[in-house]
Amino acid sequence: MAGDLKYFFEPKSVAVIGASNTPGKAGNEILVNLKANGYAGGVFPINPNEGEILGFKAYRSVKDIPGPVDLAVFIVPAEKTPSALKECAEKGIPAAVIASGGYAEVDRQGAKLQEEILAVAKAAGMRIIGPNTSGLSSTPASLTTTFFPLGKIRRGPISYIAQTGNFATHTMKWILTAENFGVARVAGLGNKIDVEDAEVLEYLGDDPETRGVLMYVEGFRNPRRFFEMARQVTKKKPVIMLKGGRTQAGAARAFSHTASLSGNDAIFDAACRQAGVVRVRRYFDLIHAAKAIAFQPLPAGRRISALAPSGALGVVAADACESLGLEMVRHSEKTQKRLREISASWVTISNPVDMSAVTPITGLVEGNKIVIETLLQDEGVDAVFPILLASPRIPPEAYSYLPDLSARYPHKPIYAAFTGDKNVFEQIRSFLETRSIPVFTALEEALETLQITCRCREAMMRD
Amino acid sequence: MAGDLKYFFEPKSVAVIGASNTPGKAGNEILVNLKANGYAGGVFPINPNEGEILGFKAYRSVKDIPGPVDLAVFIVPAEKTPSALKECAEKGIPAAVIASGGYAEVDRQGAKLQEEILAVAKAAGMRIIGPNTSGLSSTPASLTTTFFPLGKIRRGPISYIAQTGNFATHTMKWILTAENFGVARVAGLGNKIDVEDAEVLEYLGDDPETRGVLMYVEGFRNPRRFFEMARQVTKKKPVIMLKGGRTQAGAARAFSHTASLSGNDAIFDAACRQAGVVRVRRYFDLIHAAKAIAFQPLPAGRRISALAPSGALGVVAADACESLGLEMVRHSEKTQKRLREISASWVTISNPVDMSAVTPITGLVEGNKIVIETLLQDEGVDAVFPILLASPRIPPEAYSYLPDLSARYPHKPIYAAFTGDKNVFEQIRSFLETRSIPVFTALEEALETLQITCRCREAMMRD
Repeated sequence: MAGDLKYFFEPKSVAVIGASNTPGKAGNEILVNLKANGYAGGVFPINPNEGEILGFKAYRSVKDIPGPVDLAVFIVPAEKTPSALKECAEKGIPAAVIASGGYAEVDRQGAKLQEEILAVAKAAGMRIIGPNTSGLSSTPASLTTTFFPLGKIRRGPISYIAQTGNFATHTMKWILTAENFGVARVAGLGNKIDVEDAEVLEYLGDDPETRGVLMYVEGFRNPRRFFEMARQVTKKKPVIMLKGGRTQAGAARAFSHTASLSGNDAIFDAACRQAGVVRVRRYFDLIHAAKAIAFQPLPAGRRISALAPSGALGVVAADACESLGLEMVRHSEKTQKRLREISASWVTISNPVDMSAVTPITGLVEGNKIVIETLLQDEGVDAVFPILLASPRIPPEAYSYLPDLSARYPHKPIYAAFTGDKNVFEQIRSFLETRSIPVFTALEEALETLQITCRCREAMMRD
Repeated sequence: MAGDLKYFFEPKSVAVIGASNTPGKAGNEILVNLKANGYAGGVFPINPNEGEILGFKAYRSVKDIPGPVDLAVFIVPAEKTPSALKECAEKGIPAAVIASGGYAEVDRQGAKLQEEILAVAKAAGMRIIGPNTSGLSSTPASLTTTFFPLGKIRRGPISYIAQTGNFATHTMKWILTAENFGVARVAGLGNKIDVEDAEVLEYLGDDPETRGVLMYVEGFRNPRRFFEMARQVTKKKPVIMLKGGRTQAGAARAFSHTASLSGNDAIFDAACRQAGVVRVRRYFDLIHAAKAIAFQPLPAGRRISALAPSGALGVVAADACESLGLEMVRHSEKTQKRLREISASWVTISNPVDMSAVTPITGLVEGNKIVIETLLQDEGVDAVFPILLASPRIPPEAYSYLPDLSARYPHKPIYAAFTGDKNVFEQIRSFLETRSIPVFTALEEALETLQITCRCREAMMRD
């Protein structure tokens, strides 16, 4: 069934029902976004009163378009949708995104309209995403149906499914303006009258462009179907979920938001664990995990080795590791011997390595480089976590040994955190993340993310 | 006894033992920092080979300085310190910061030196901070003894005590480059051979410049003394602590770092609770709490009211509230009536208020303003938490209603979070935080901070 979704994610042509020449209107922004992303397929604005919109020839009806259309995007008011949808059905269009709201989320009249459009679609074998969603984006196809001003969407290996288009769009805006990783496919499912999570997840599971899947979910129409699908997909790639409505207060809100019935959260949690879905509790856990998965391999296990510029940060890192169920390993004899060679005599060789005992002997940059390589070589170490000092005296380029080492030890993830000067930090983060080293503001943030990616790997390896 | 500390935090003159004319050397950086902060007292570099350092007349020995000296800062090697300290004792200098390392943290020889300097100080009635620390800063006195390049330190109401000077300095660098709040007094206590946490806490408790105290601690020489003091201070102002060594792994590291014996963490936790000390688990909890305390009053209780730009964010906020033990309140009848007047008819009036049902009627900026004021007026609400949309279409100045409302409702804290465009977010954050509205990146971060400040207030109100 997920085969049908290729018309959503890889359409050869798109009709925009309700296209507009008025800047700022949703029917205009969609076309602006399509242009900004360089969509190369046919674009057909539908508007009976315009000859041309943003350089695209406009049509009165989809039925006037010469040749086939793969995807129709609806931004006309709810009450006008059924008749326009019928024309799409007659044209043989296989897929539609219904962006406009005014359906079951609003009132009984809207619920009736929703049933009506579903009947039209079913009869024609047409698939629907929505209504009440900004729809989808698909960077391999240079496509987006969103009507929020987004501009060019950065391509990358992360895909996500959101209960609502709003959530998908805010998240996209953050990724584009604050992060350095890119996305493959995004689906905001809205009222989910037809296409639902399980099917999109199936598509993403088979999608070579997708390395990891994020989800924001308030509820499933058919949880059994979802978890059966998840069980298969999570053996191939990580599926990380933030579930809205996990508390009583949240569940009450989720019901009034998307009419989702949350049920018992402990049962939901158990279902996730059985299906290999990794749940997280905070919104930014999704973003941080995405960054880690986009840039680095999953850790083979929970055995962490770290270095810190001061004793106190080493202590805090060790605390965070143990609290998160990660192991700050005892290094091999060989590693310890090497570390002793380059450390001040008074220091106890430990994990995290206290760099204040090393750098007076080796120099700052050279010391970090030697120690990180030594830790990467230790066979008892699954991931290396350097906590470094962001100082105006060390330019970002001085950290190029990190991507170099990452390339030479491609199976061991490196996550970096920095302390010190924020402005310098931002420069280093930009330098390193565009070279596939994920950089975190807080050491706890890095370790919390490492715990999530460890769980992803464990889910993948389960029987 | 804390009276003695005035010579550390408000000295009328400072001698720098080991001052240097060589840029980049610690003995030079201290003087650069003193100049950058506009220290107005007497500055006396001690160096037998120089006539002048950075424009200050240099002396061979402290004994050559005309007139009294309040504070001596030592950056000479450990083995040279005892004899120089004797000269300070003879001069009658009442306070010394011993910045250099090479003492008990290094070897037995260092431990012996440490005992020696303590004996000199005790005999003379001189007080010592350190050794092995960058020392202290005190913005009301335009003073710092740190030798890390920091420049001008922003003045404000937050003080902190750190086990190590390194930790204090990294944290200061972060505050100065990434935050908008300022600090009053900072003490990095190092090896704590004389002045210890309890005494500094007593000083900060009485200090009118200090509104809240942060602490990073690995262990106390005299826990009973500390907790007795904390019991008193926490009734006057918040004391928030990150304890290093709370896990087995962390405790092992803390022992090799500062020879601190962590003991049973549950017992430590109970002692904190009894003494009103609010423990946090993550480094950035300290920073976020500091921001909230610097800018806003403590919440009178845990009853939160929020607004969100999308239903999903409202759900996630409600989940976070309940998980943190905060209450997303049911609004008063009056509030509900007012909200109904300005909301779309189809929406269920709830908490968080779903602004997507309001702004189509009122406009975006106006809607947020009306709703926030309505929530501030609700007598059942202790704190208001707007989640807003950072969009390039709304300039930072459009949010000036937030500081205005905060001034009109001075007893109810407002914490804001934003979703959307990161660059716009940073502009808004800068605009609002320089007007005393704390702004958070993630909604969970804001609520986690609110829970911490609620605990501070509860500690203050306890019997």
